[in-house]
Amino acid sequence: MMNVKTMHTPEVQELLEKVAGFNNSDGNERVKTILHRVMHDVFQIIEDLDITQDELWTAVYYINQLGANGEAALLAPGLGIDKYLDIRSDEADKQAGLYGGTPRTIEGPLYVAGSPKSEGFARMDDGTDTESEVMLLTGQVTDQDGNPIRNAVVDIWHANSMGAYSYFDKSQSEYNLRRRIETDENGRYTARSIIPAGYGCPPEGSTQHLLNQLGRHGNRPAHIHFFISKPGYKHLTTQINLAGDEYTYDDFAFATLEELVIEAQRIEDPAKADALGLEGPFTQVEFDIQLLSTEKSELHVRHSRLRALEGEQA
Amino acid sequence: MMNVKTMHTPEVQELLEKVAGFNNSDGNERVKTILHRVMHDVFQIIEDLDITQDELWTAVYYINQLGANGEAALLAPGLGIDKYLDIRSDEADKQAGLYGGTPRTIEGPLYVAGSPKSEGFARMDDGTDTESEVMLLTGQVTDQDGNPIRNAVVDIWHANSMGAYSYFDKSQSEYNLRRRIETDENGRYTARSIIPAGYGCPPEGSTQHLLNQLGRHGNRPAHIHFFISKPGYKHLTTQINLAGDEYTYDDFAFATLEELVIEAQRIEDPAKADALGLEGPFTQVEFDIQLLSTEKSELHVRHSRLRALEGEQA
Repeated sequence: MMNVKTMHTPEVQELLEKVAGFNNSDGNERVKTILHRVMHDVFQIIEDLDITQDELWTAVYYINQLGANGEAALLAPGLGIDKYLDIRSDEADKQAGLYGGTPRTIEGPLYVAGSPKSEGFARMDDGTDTESEVMLLTGQVTDQDGNPIRNAVVDIWHANSMGAYSYFDKSQSEYNLRRRIETDENGRYTARSIIPAGYGCPPEGSTQHLLNQLGRHGNRPAHIHFFISKPGYKHLTTQINLAGDEYTYDDFAFATLEELVIEAQRIEDPAKADALGLEGPFTQVEFDIQLLSTEKSELHVRHSRLRALEGEQA
Repeated sequence: MMNVKTMHTPEVQELLEKVAGFNNSDGNERVKTILHRVMHDVFQIIEDLDITQDELWTAVYYINQLGANGEAALLAPGLGIDKYLDIRSDEADKQAGLYGGTPRTIEGPLYVAGSPKSEGFARMDDGTDTESEVMLLTGQVTDQDGNPIRNAVVDIWHANSMGAYSYFDKSQSEYNLRRRIETDENGRYTARSIIPAGYGCPPEGSTQHLLNQLGRHGNRPAHIHFFISKPGYKHLTTQINLAGDEYTYDDFAFATLEELVIEAQRIEDPAKADALGLEGPFTQVEFDIQLLSTEKSELHVRHSRLRALEGEQA
């Protein structure tokens, strides 16, 4: 049907207007505007690429399965949406003179609000992941001039040595590998945790199913997520990747930034372990964070999206 | 961020190519082509309409809920997709000289394959819907010259007096209101059934949720679905609407066609009821069907899509 061109006809144009509810005065104008544009573009794609009935219904039932698996917010970063939103936010910051400091990168869908909060230090792991390497994660939060920021909240979450996240992986204890640490008087935070493994999309899931069709893998390098916030400063959503991972520069979610790749340091010296109360060698990960000051209070907080437990106990 | 324009940048263009797997030689070329176009248009919409993070994530989590509710193929007709595919198929038929006869209209998502098959006549209801009006549904299948077509399969499905379909409504018996009738030597088929009520989207479901935002209702008029097929003739997917329904010309799925609106006839004469073995007044619905002959065997069968029980017992 490559010669079937109906988009320009009054019939199709009127259909699109009825679909978007342009012929009634109820509903939400913004939703109507967006929906009209989306459906116009969907129709145009069907015409331009001569999408068959079979292809169309495969896509429709794919969405059913994607949602049934709860994977829409996992597919989104795999399709570059989160990265694209970061590119747009960076550009907006540049235009507003608010660009700089530690770069942002994507949040991902696995944050859980309300993790335990402590000052200066937290142990993040529950001690059950006995095969894992101990990680000492530490750094300093400063402003753009290098002045330490005290009482900034460093909200950290990461996977275990299987690449799995507590709450979503029901076998882990509550808030395992999720902590909020307030920086001390020197702007420093320190966490004892375990070295995370990279994350892989569920191999039988909808995201991996589509990635396979695109000839793509569904792996992320080992990484650690951060929200860093303090009133008076631009909220920062970011993450670090551990150098040397097979996927450090080949993240299916496109989140890697050169400045956020950290060379972890293995510490074999027993004296250093002793001093920290650790029993053997450990790996030290250092991540200093620079925030930008701003008086715009709407920039002090993370943007809203559906997050586990948010609103219940934030 | 109305002035944030990044679509033209090499960074975004390269991201789109990586997303679609253009930099690898695995996967499916057609899927890559479609996905690249879809994501390009999604990104362009985000830029043009300045879609916020909040709006984007609302849409992503809407898809999760839509799929969890299994409503993607219900939303599709509500967004005019099925109607648009019909418009395209009609245009393709016109170009191929295969337009005419009884018009097609949308299938909807509620067909179940493998219903009981009989010759000439079937009773479709299981007798439990005692509040309903008895329907005598009858007609003749002919070719474009008016010659009766014998042994055409008339595959009929419709809702009960609550607007609910068997299989999807687990309270109904197996294949209730679903039958396949082969036409007799005069091309005729006759079904005894019950007058269906109109269908309404689940009021708490994802489809209705979006329709509310568009100021739209989610109702269909009372209607009866048909597949009509016989080798040598173009397969026909259609449905009839019963005249006089509040929604006959205001179907949320845009399926109504003037030629397919049927004036049902109430028969009060006890003699006529007696002759048919019925106990009281009934409503007669007459629907004659004209098929077009074609030698293209791929047109003799319905297009493929996921359908309940299809492949298991067709």
